[in-house]
Amino acid sequence: MARLLDSINEPADLKRLTTGEIERLAREIREELVGTVFQTGGHLASNLGVVELTLALHSVFNSPKDKIVWDVGHQCYVHKMLTGRKDKFHTIRQFSGLSGFPTPNESPHDAFGTGHASTSVSAALGMAVARDRLGEDGYVIAVIGDGALTGGLAFEGLNNAGHSASRLIVVLNDNQMSISPNVGALAKYLGRLRTDPRYYQAKSGLEHTLMRWRFGKKSLDALKAVKNKFKGLLIPTMMWEELGFTYIGPVDGHNIGLLQETLQRAKTLQRPAFVHVCTVKGRGYDPAEKDSVRFHGVPPNGGPKSNVPSYTKIFGETVARIARGDPRVVAITAAMAEGTGLVRFALEFPQRFFDVGIAEGHAVTFAAGLASRGMRPIVAIYSTFLQRAYDQIIHDVCMQDTPVVFAIDRAGIVGDDGRTHQGTFDLSYLRAIPNLAIMTPRDENELQHMLWTALNYAGPVAIRYPRGDGIGVPLDDAMKLLPWGRAEILRQGDHLAILAVGSTVYPALAAADILGRHGLSCAVVNMRFVKPLDTDLIIHMARRFHRLVTIEENALAGGFGSGVLEILEMRGLLSQTIVKRIGIPDEFVDHGPQDVLREKIGLTPQGISQTVRNAFPDLQRLTPIAIVSHRT
Amino acid sequence: MARLLDSINEPADLKRLTTGEIERLAREIREELVGTVFQTGGHLASNLGVVELTLALHSVFNSPKDKIVWDVGHQCYVHKMLTGRKDKFHTIRQFSGLSGFPTPNESPHDAFGTGHASTSVSAALGMAVARDRLGEDGYVIAVIGDGALTGGLAFEGLNNAGHSASRLIVVLNDNQMSISPNVGALAKYLGRLRTDPRYYQAKSGLEHTLMRWRFGKKSLDALKAVKNKFKGLLIPTMMWEELGFTYIGPVDGHNIGLLQETLQRAKTLQRPAFVHVCTVKGRGYDPAEKDSVRFHGVPPNGGPKSNVPSYTKIFGETVARIARGDPRVVAITAAMAEGTGLVRFALEFPQRFFDVGIAEGHAVTFAAGLASRGMRPIVAIYSTFLQRAYDQIIHDVCMQDTPVVFAIDRAGIVGDDGRTHQGTFDLSYLRAIPNLAIMTPRDENELQHMLWTALNYAGPVAIRYPRGDGIGVPLDDAMKLLPWGRAEILRQGDHLAILAVGSTVYPALAAADILGRHGLSCAVVNMRFVKPLDTDLIIHMARRFHRLVTIEENALAGGFGSGVLEILEMRGLLSQTIVKRIGIPDEFVDHGPQDVLREKIGLTPQGISQTVRNAFPDLQRLTPIAIVSHRT
Repeated sequence: MARLLDSINEPADLKRLTTGEIERLAREIREELVGTVFQTGGHLASNLGVVELTLALHSVFNSPKDKIVWDVGHQCYVHKMLTGRKDKFHTIRQFSGLSGFPTPNESPHDAFGTGHASTSVSAALGMAVARDRLGEDGYVIAVIGDGALTGGLAFEGLNNAGHSASRLIVVLNDNQMSISPNVGALAKYLGRLRTDPRYYQAKSGLEHTLMRWRFGKKSLDALKAVKNKFKGLLIPTMMWEELGFTYIGPVDGHNIGLLQETLQRAKTLQRPAFVHVCTVKGRGYDPAEKDSVRFHGVPPNGGPKSNVPSYTKIFGETVARIARGDPRVVAITAAMAEGTGLVRFALEFPQRFFDVGIAEGHAVTFAAGLASRGMRPIVAIYSTFLQRAYDQIIHDVCMQDTPVVFAIDRAGIVGDDGRTHQGTFDLSYLRAIPNLAIMTPRDENELQHMLWTALNYAGPVAIRYPRGDGIGVPLDDAMKLLPWGRAEILRQGDHLAILAVGSTVYPALAAADILGRHGLSCAVVNMRFVKPLDTDLIIHMARRFHRLVTIEENALAGGFGSGVLEILEMRGLLSQTIVKRIGIPDEFVDHGPQDVLREKIGLTPQGISQTVRNAFPDLQRLTPIAIVSHRT
Repeated sequence: MARLLDSINEPADLKRLTTGEIERLAREIREELVGTVFQTGGHLASNLGVVELTLALHSVFNSPKDKIVWDVGHQCYVHKMLTGRKDKFHTIRQFSGLSGFPTPNESPHDAFGTGHASTSVSAALGMAVARDRLGEDGYVIAVIGDGALTGGLAFEGLNNAGHSASRLIVVLNDNQMSISPNVGALAKYLGRLRTDPRYYQAKSGLEHTLMRWRFGKKSLDALKAVKNKFKGLLIPTMMWEELGFTYIGPVDGHNIGLLQETLQRAKTLQRPAFVHVCTVKGRGYDPAEKDSVRFHGVPPNGGPKSNVPSYTKIFGETVARIARGDPRVVAITAAMAEGTGLVRFALEFPQRFFDVGIAEGHAVTFAAGLASRGMRPIVAIYSTFLQRAYDQIIHDVCMQDTPVVFAIDRAGIVGDDGRTHQGTFDLSYLRAIPNLAIMTPRDENELQHMLWTALNYAGPVAIRYPRGDGIGVPLDDAMKLLPWGRAEILRQGDHLAILAVGSTVYPALAAADILGRHGLSCAVVNMRFVKPLDTDLIIHMARRFHRLVTIEENALAGGFGSGVLEILEMRGLLSQTIVKRIGIPDEFVDHGPQDVLREKIGLTPQGISQTVRNAFPDLQRLTPIAIVSHRT
């Protein structure tokens, strides 16, 4: 039998289908999801959870005229299949293929770019107000998970949307978890809402009737009066109505017919509507349904075959190890317990582990409060998400000089998640903040020493390390204090010095090997500290070689290399030094494998050596023999 | 009669006083507040509103053992008077005097530094958890206004605090406005809470009884059962209880006895408590009570005598002017309508003005939504508060290249508000973001041209301008398009080029005059654009003079000057150029008058000229005559 999916080229095609056919289509989509995502890698459980919801949305609304904003956006796979991209679906998250997130450049159906959480209500409100101001029509729908709802930005959006007179539909995709199981008062509240017997009473009685009624204006008013009278008794936990929304739900998010009916009802409202849909993450694929955390993000082709531990893993183990000896150490994350490697710590120290939900700002200010009273908090957040707590880092931590340690995972090129998730700005935005120290381990062994060093320092420290496997170096048994603000010379040379940070240190060493074969003898320095920079060493190298190369997996604008330029300027050495900075140019980096992207940017040993050769053409004339004679 | 206030040297002294005496003290404090703040300048209305609340807090709790966290913090004046600083109160906000905000370095009673809004619950939760983990005791109290409650961070804090088992008291200081009258669904909700007849029924009946009762454990339980039974009917709008708090209130915030009783009751709870206190901003000083917006911030000695319009004023007028001709233009601010000069715009275009409350993140993402559908939003936010929307600028605006204009007021040194409010980082943190253009007007006339230019550009633009008066230049009648990415040479010279941005352009010109008298002939360039930098001009100047000076009122780390270094590096001109960067060193800048701080940092004409002379000692040997002969 031909697949129904093959006949769906745009959302309008859905409107021809019966409910039974859409249910069949849902099964086909699930097969496609499971089959493809295990090849490509990507978000599985969340997409399995929204198959029916997406089908219902696209059969009831008219995208792209109607705007659907997918909060976080990793649940957009079904949406992409239904909006003319099913034939490219096998390229999802591949280099030059479909993005794993809604991307306006990719399709007019991707109404707003997302990747980070909690933005949808604010963006949708903007679109709704623009529609009204420009005298246009159409619907705007924000689809937000219960996890994203814990982000303060979502609350700000709801607070403003409920107040406005704009037609706007917020669909809560309530699957009872963000990336990790959900936390906080809101989660408890939603739980109650789902299970309150009064709700079920209501649903099978009055509310049910309301929902199935074909409304005329008059009957609606009459019903409203009745409903209002009983509301306090029926559903006393109407936070959404407090926020100004008309609340509809909860609705079974896997019942196509009911979803369509509910969305049709929401369409009739002339004011902000809040549709509460309950879904099951991983729905329809047993292993994912049972362990949706594990199947949240699926690695390509069954995952890495590497035996090398990841930075994440070593971080988690080191924190637990340090915590065993120091009761002041606590760990905080923002819905990234698995991703930051803190699950083990959480199991061993449940009272000292805090997953605050998708709430990076709170995570940082909470840590500042803890540190102000003598605790040693470690805040583990991905580089890209730490951007969401920038003011809290400045205002609550660094201005008060409280000893909070920021463990910044996924710094630099993150790969398949693409532009919304690249951790390519942290060195720039952190370097401007007074009092903050910034460290960058060259490998997983140095990461443990840096954590130990940071926790023995009296002020705020950020440690940024890359996504993925470590180098595979042996781990020292004992953690040691690194000399504060001091770099490490890894290799001596004659012609120039390469100053490298973090993930670029080993590639710099390999580049030096290549350059050596071309007759260029390079010293290689592991800077360790981006702040404070090792000024003495930089000056020494500048005076000795008059040629410096800086390498970083960070934006060139304001990054580590700029810090080196600043030192040379302040010490009056600029005009005696030729500097070549290597890093990420001034553009957003799209998705693809980390190694492919690094190669494209020129951060591989080959790329680095080529850049260095181009930067110092005068050195090309030296012969290997001449170099040998220059060795000291 | 001797003042009671003179006998209060620490909070413990309050405990000796009768309620009547404390009421007398409140009157004395109000006199002191009005008398001093009209001299020093500062926040008047908010402090007048919390006189009784502060007295009640310090008579019931034991600071500094008990920790009081003042959200925003501008309402801390009474607290400072009562905690050993009354004799220095006349120095508040003066250079080297008391800070206008809680500052842990100033007193152990300032438990947490604040200045920005919505941080208190998160910080207090951190302190409470630290207390519990360390086995200590004591109370932690967050005092937060209803305005600050609209910030998403406050919601994140409440969501996490309510969930936790920690003893923590959140006092809502509900004066029905943030800086501007409050907006949003939450404000409406609070309004209903205050005026719901069921509440007043309750208050005069059951709730009143509850509040005045001396509780034993048993009677409390019995009452709780009664209360729970009726809660749904009595106070159906219990958002705080949904969030996990025990709600107490609302309480008259100017009744000392009732406040003390209420806080005593909150002390007895073993879980998070939410105390709802209603106060009147400006209370006890008629003019401030009637116009608390005007008396929110009072200028020193009756305010400026200047006839020169402020940047803020010109911004507001220009936006209104542009909006008259372009219906796509809308303006957004985050509780800064007065401060950003948008009141006039709001009156003229009420449908195109959006004050979103203290919610900078939402303001930016909302603007992105508007811009994505064809509007031309201008987001007016102070530099320091824009830090709170950093991720939204990156993720929602610049990554999608939507044409949002950021009007960044209070950039650079802001003066009396001090370190929490200095706008000294924006050039650094914005410069790293791809797609974003950054402009810096040299004067108020250029500001209007830049706004016009930005609104005619197809991508995101930030315009940063200083707090305070413009230069007093005449305003061109017609707004004009500035050449994109091009600087303006203001003065030719022979020896070196000074590249200046924004507020430093006129000081640079004046410095060039001084330097001319010392025999140094300086070209002066108004850069206009910090991004894209005028690469051609920088290269031209570097090739011509081999000596460049950069000046900015921004952190030197990663700022404009670093951008110039980066260009020289990329073009291979570094080693032929001596560069001296002038800007703000790597430390937080404390409070004081803008001119005093600029002098201290070296941003005055004298300071700049001295720095330049020190930087280029070789040029000192030139005689004025020799210079004349070199003129072209």
